[in-house]
Amino acid sequence: MTEREEDLELRLRRCREEVDREIERLLEEDSGIPERLRDAMGYSLRAGGKRLRPFLCIAAAELSGCPAEPVLPMAVALEMFHTASLIHDDLPCMDDDPLRRGKPSNHMVFGEGLATLAGDALLLWAFETAISKLLPVFPAERILGAIGEFAKAIGPSGVCAGQVLDTDPSSRESEDDFVWRIASLKTGALIRASVLAGGILGGLEDVKIEALYNYGTHLGLAFQVVDDILDVTGKPEQMGKTPGKDSVQGKVTFVSTYGLEKARRIARDESVKAIDSLSCFGQEADPLRSLARVLLDRSS
Amino acid sequence: MTEREEDLELRLRRCREEVDREIERLLEEDSGIPERLRDAMGYSLRAGGKRLRPFLCIAAAELSGCPAEPVLPMAVALEMFHTASLIHDDLPCMDDDPLRRGKPSNHMVFGEGLATLAGDALLLWAFETAISKLLPVFPAERILGAIGEFAKAIGPSGVCAGQVLDTDPSSRESEDDFVWRIASLKTGALIRASVLAGGILGGLEDVKIEALYNYGTHLGLAFQVVDDILDVTGKPEQMGKTPGKDSVQGKVTFVSTYGLEKARRIARDESVKAIDSLSCFGQEADPLRSLARVLLDRSS
Repeated sequence: MTEREEDLELRLRRCREEVDREIERLLEEDSGIPERLRDAMGYSLRAGGKRLRPFLCIAAAELSGCPAEPVLPMAVALEMFHTASLIHDDLPCMDDDPLRRGKPSNHMVFGEGLATLAGDALLLWAFETAISKLLPVFPAERILGAIGEFAKAIGPSGVCAGQVLDTDPSSRESEDDFVWRIASLKTGALIRASVLAGGILGGLEDVKIEALYNYGTHLGLAFQVVDDILDVTGKPEQMGKTPGKDSVQGKVTFVSTYGLEKARRIARDESVKAIDSLSCFGQEADPLRSLARVLLDRSS
Repeated sequence: MTEREEDLELRLRRCREEVDREIERLLEEDSGIPERLRDAMGYSLRAGGKRLRPFLCIAAAELSGCPAEPVLPMAVALEMFHTASLIHDDLPCMDDDPLRRGKPSNHMVFGEGLATLAGDALLLWAFETAISKLLPVFPAERILGAIGEFAKAIGPSGVCAGQVLDTDPSSRESEDDFVWRIASLKTGALIRASVLAGGILGGLEDVKIEALYNYGTHLGLAFQVVDDILDVTGKPEQMGKTPGKDSVQGKVTFVSTYGLEKARRIARDESVKAIDSLSCFGQEADPLRSLARVLLDRSS
């Protein structure tokens, strides 16, 4: 492990701890949430994961010297939405996956009805939390800018569009670029919104926001390619979800479209493009650069 | 029909037409929405209904002399969320209702997977639309205030909480006030947020916002009581949904808790309280007063 990678590991761990603490604080604080709903939301929020999106948001805010703490509600909002989308994704009427992050999926524990509502509640809690907690700290224009990017990224022309293309047989197209479209919507849009939201809250100038836009776009694609590769080569204990499901469900993936070797090359190319996008930043962007590098190690 | 009621009818119809037009415009405008998703969202958005929440939002904004047109995106956002909640509500894992507003429910036409995603997409489109369309017109603080009320009202301590209490058997409580809690969350929270959002966008002073808060609280309760009464006394062609479902599903309603006669009295009392809340307003609040009056006619 290089020094930079060690530094990244440390930062990722610290971010994960801060995000986990903030989630606990929020779950305890809101006394209006019915107990069973709180349990269902907390079950999936606590199931862990790398907290990659919060990390990206905070690292992007730090580019302008903004500390992590005031950005946490936005970072957690991104994770809330991500968790919600996984809960709905696992439902029998969608991907029908009984396992998520090594544990029974939400609906296996709480039933389909409550899992559907827990997903809805988390989607909405993301907005509620971001607005109420950021309002006393950041200028209203920046908050609206960040939340606006977030909403656009996850709505019907963002993540939801990707989910439909990914799961609805009649929406399928046969062209090679279909897999790029799915990936950039299903995965890329939220990853890009994570850095954009952090950058906007931090008050970065337009040219740097554009650089983050490009970084997020390429990182998101690299991330999805690596995920598709791991679905073929990964072991369940590494992944915490059921491997090989993509091909069983006949999904369009980078591996099914291009084969394993070319998929690995695409992941490398996108990762390099992500790093190259950050040329207008100095050392302060090293965590974002290291992340793009480390991501690749997962797939090779 | 009194003159005031005729005026209300006219206003309601005009509002419905404006909202319907805005919905069509938005569905056409956003070219990033996949066709099948757009069809599923549009199917339920177009299924009509009285557009009561948009009307409340616009009528509240008009209290300060604010015209309807700039408020439309907020009004439509309220309807988008309402539609989303109905789509998810009808799913087999929730209320399992094949009929909504006299037509097959969303999942009967598009399947459960796409219906779940169409609901998610509409929830998120509500925020995306409100933020992007209000931003050029209203001060950022007002937009955040309005959207913040909206998010709080529909999240895990608002509408979602009500849905859980209403559908999850283990969340049920036996006290008489349980039905009040369900109603104020499941129905009341969004109705109240509708007037608050309009009032905040219009820039009303705090004391008038508080009056709207009380009006919305009582109107929302009256609305739910009337709905419970109609579930027992209504005819399918009047209602556009399956009547008698509440008792079949063993739901806690005002009629099951208090009986028909007392439920009618509660509806009347809440309606009067709603009207009384508006005493700080002059004639400009007549549409909101008439609405509370006309609501009662539905149940008697």
